[in-house]
Amino acid sequence: MHLFTSRFNPKPEGVAEMPGSVTTPGGFLASGISAGIKKSGKRDLGLLVCENPAASAVVMTANAAAAAPVTVCRSEVALKAVQGVVVNSGCANACTGEDGEQDAREMIRLAAGSTRIEPSRMAVASTGVIGRRLPMDRVVSGIAEAVSELSANGGNDFAESIMTTDRLEKQGAVEVELSGGKVRIGACAKGAGMIAPDMATMLAFITTDAGAPADLLRDVLAAAAAGSFNAVSVDGDMSTNDCAFLVASGTSGVSLEAGSEDLETFSVALESVCRSLALKMVADGEGATKVIELTVTGARDRGEAARVARVISLSPLVRTAFYGRDANWGRLIASAGAALAGEPALEADICYEGICLARGGAAADEGVDPGRLAAVMDAAEIAVKIDLHRGGEEYKMYFSDLTHEYVTINAEYTT
Amino acid sequence: MHLFTSRFNPKPEGVAEMPGSVTTPGGFLASGISAGIKKSGKRDLGLLVCENPAASAVVMTANAAAAAPVTVCRSEVALKAVQGVVVNSGCANACTGEDGEQDAREMIRLAAGSTRIEPSRMAVASTGVIGRRLPMDRVVSGIAEAVSELSANGGNDFAESIMTTDRLEKQGAVEVELSGGKVRIGACAKGAGMIAPDMATMLAFITTDAGAPADLLRDVLAAAAAGSFNAVSVDGDMSTNDCAFLVASGTSGVSLEAGSEDLETFSVALESVCRSLALKMVADGEGATKVIELTVTGARDRGEAARVARVISLSPLVRTAFYGRDANWGRLIASAGAALAGEPALEADICYEGICLARGGAAADEGVDPGRLAAVMDAAEIAVKIDLHRGGEEYKMYFSDLTHEYVTINAEYTT
Repeated sequence: MHLFTSRFNPKPEGVAEMPGSVTTPGGFLASGISAGIKKSGKRDLGLLVCENPAASAVVMTANAAAAAPVTVCRSEVALKAVQGVVVNSGCANACTGEDGEQDAREMIRLAAGSTRIEPSRMAVASTGVIGRRLPMDRVVSGIAEAVSELSANGGNDFAESIMTTDRLEKQGAVEVELSGGKVRIGACAKGAGMIAPDMATMLAFITTDAGAPADLLRDVLAAAAAGSFNAVSVDGDMSTNDCAFLVASGTSGVSLEAGSEDLETFSVALESVCRSLALKMVADGEGATKVIELTVTGARDRGEAARVARVISLSPLVRTAFYGRDANWGRLIASAGAALAGEPALEADICYEGICLARGGAAADEGVDPGRLAAVMDAAEIAVKIDLHRGGEEYKMYFSDLTHEYVTINAEYTT
Repeated sequence: MHLFTSRFNPKPEGVAEMPGSVTTPGGFLASGISAGIKKSGKRDLGLLVCENPAASAVVMTANAAAAAPVTVCRSEVALKAVQGVVVNSGCANACTGEDGEQDAREMIRLAAGSTRIEPSRMAVASTGVIGRRLPMDRVVSGIAEAVSELSANGGNDFAESIMTTDRLEKQGAVEVELSGGKVRIGACAKGAGMIAPDMATMLAFITTDAGAPADLLRDVLAAAAAGSFNAVSVDGDMSTNDCAFLVASGTSGVSLEAGSEDLETFSVALESVCRSLALKMVADGEGATKVIELTVTGARDRGEAARVARVISLSPLVRTAFYGRDANWGRLIASAGAALAGEPALEADICYEGICLARGGAAADEGVDPGRLAAVMDAAEIAVKIDLHRGGEEYKMYFSDLTHEYVTINAEYTT
């Protein structure tokens, strides 16, 4: 599959896309097997390991009801030196109390023991239904099987094993040309619903054969997440289990250094890979038919721009209008006005793909070609701009429409 | 129709319900006619007047994109002495710039002139589609007709004339026994979608034949709104046009005085009337099948309790789960955790109608009777409690489920 399928995220210069996965960069092995956690019998347990002690960076949900794997990783795993991750789908191991933390620790202990990785370097992640205990007997035999299946070609199986309600596969790899040679980045993610700004209900695993100190990885991952995973919304629900891992094997022999041009090139490539995954999550947004790129400009500060963008992106009225192919800018301006409650009268411009429907807060019917507007609303990707005329700052985010299918999926997905 | 149809809002002591409307209290005339603003030919222009110079109180949307009638009322109408209101449905006169304000002023001028009420005592309100100009030729002849139809029996027609996507009628009247005699309260409202905390997309008109100074009316209306209109959510969208008017004719001869027991009795009655209207808006929430009363307890302060309640009530995942009759408490705790992002681990209890599904943040399967739980989830009203175990404060709010019908209504309601 291809990473760069959205016109909202063109492939950067110096980046070559290749068929691939998290095992495309040198030094990584992975597997994904069916342990029987999911009733469907689909793959539901995955293992990803780096053959040598790696440097890493991790971002995690801020949710106060964070799941057991998150709390255990935070308190007991060396997040700067993660060398392996054991992950399951089908059960989030969230809201499971002390018992759930014991289960997460047991997953680490088994995966670390069988792979001979230091337990403090083995992370754990889970995704699926909240409030249920893991079927640990199945997890135990599953981990043994996953260890025996570890392979340099196991990236696809690993990517499958983390999916829940995903319909689209979300993985790929790129090669980045640096001054000292080529490095690779491989990545996969899961996420479709419960996708909010500031970490979606998602797991993302990113590997690279570049070498870099953990502090540098932390900075580039944080920057990449800001413009990708943290700038998307399907339904505004921040999950209990969100994590993104970046693990660097260094096997390419090319090292990243602080302040270098190569680091900048690598960062741009990493962010574009993350944004590809994030946009696929939005496109996959549990019944979504459209992805909207919303750019809020003319804000007093970036926080204000982000607040307006988020309120608009969460509005069921805005989102159902896009589903109905209705260029109902009134709902956007009402949401923006709600985000700026108590502020002076909002005199915003709103344009859909350059067709300006409102100027200075009022309808701008002149120059609107109904045929062209209808074509814009029919497209699978729509770029919308709102200029608040309050200052010079801006924020961009991506969200999906709200459809009958979303309601069906989420009304029927039982506890 | 009856006001007290929800078990979440029992009729207070000393309050008698009667068939009625905004013209049930003495001193009021109303009308509602079809001016041709709505394509359907349904009533779309209403007039409500008090025969004598009245005292009044008004609460209005804080939306920065407030509609022309709101901005004109705020700047040019004596909100403590409103004696009449001219209102239309079918067009919100929002995002219409200077021209829209001129139209709102013209509505006031015509309604005031024909009824011989001071223009500064004539308010204006609109509801309907955003971003379109009013068809002023029809409004002008409509106001003339509405004036000629004014009647002490016109309350029902007035209530009809303010409806947009409402399916349920929202009006009624009560008689309240005070020490000095009986007073009446009549009320009607419109609102179904775009219903958010802190004023819903709603218009509410409340009349009373009690006498009271405007400052007292302001206090009782603010208190009543806090526990009713400001504590409901259908889709979290704060509208451009929200207003609630309370007008007191004083014709009963019974006056309310600050600090009196009668004032307390009146306040309770007023709040219960407002809550009835608010609950009907939630029940009518564009395809809603259920009303959920959510009580958040154990918060550090009331603001925290309200924040948690609002995040839960806006969650599409929570709302679709109720539609699917799925007691998916995991989605509630994930939302609460998101509202408390960055705070220490949340160890909440969650109970549906007294059936506790989570204790201390983890599943509490003991004592759960699946049959009883299924019956709870089938009901049209469900009381849910979440105890955060963080302090002693609480907040209560009401919201609806998210259904296929909501998506249909809002995808197809065109600009």
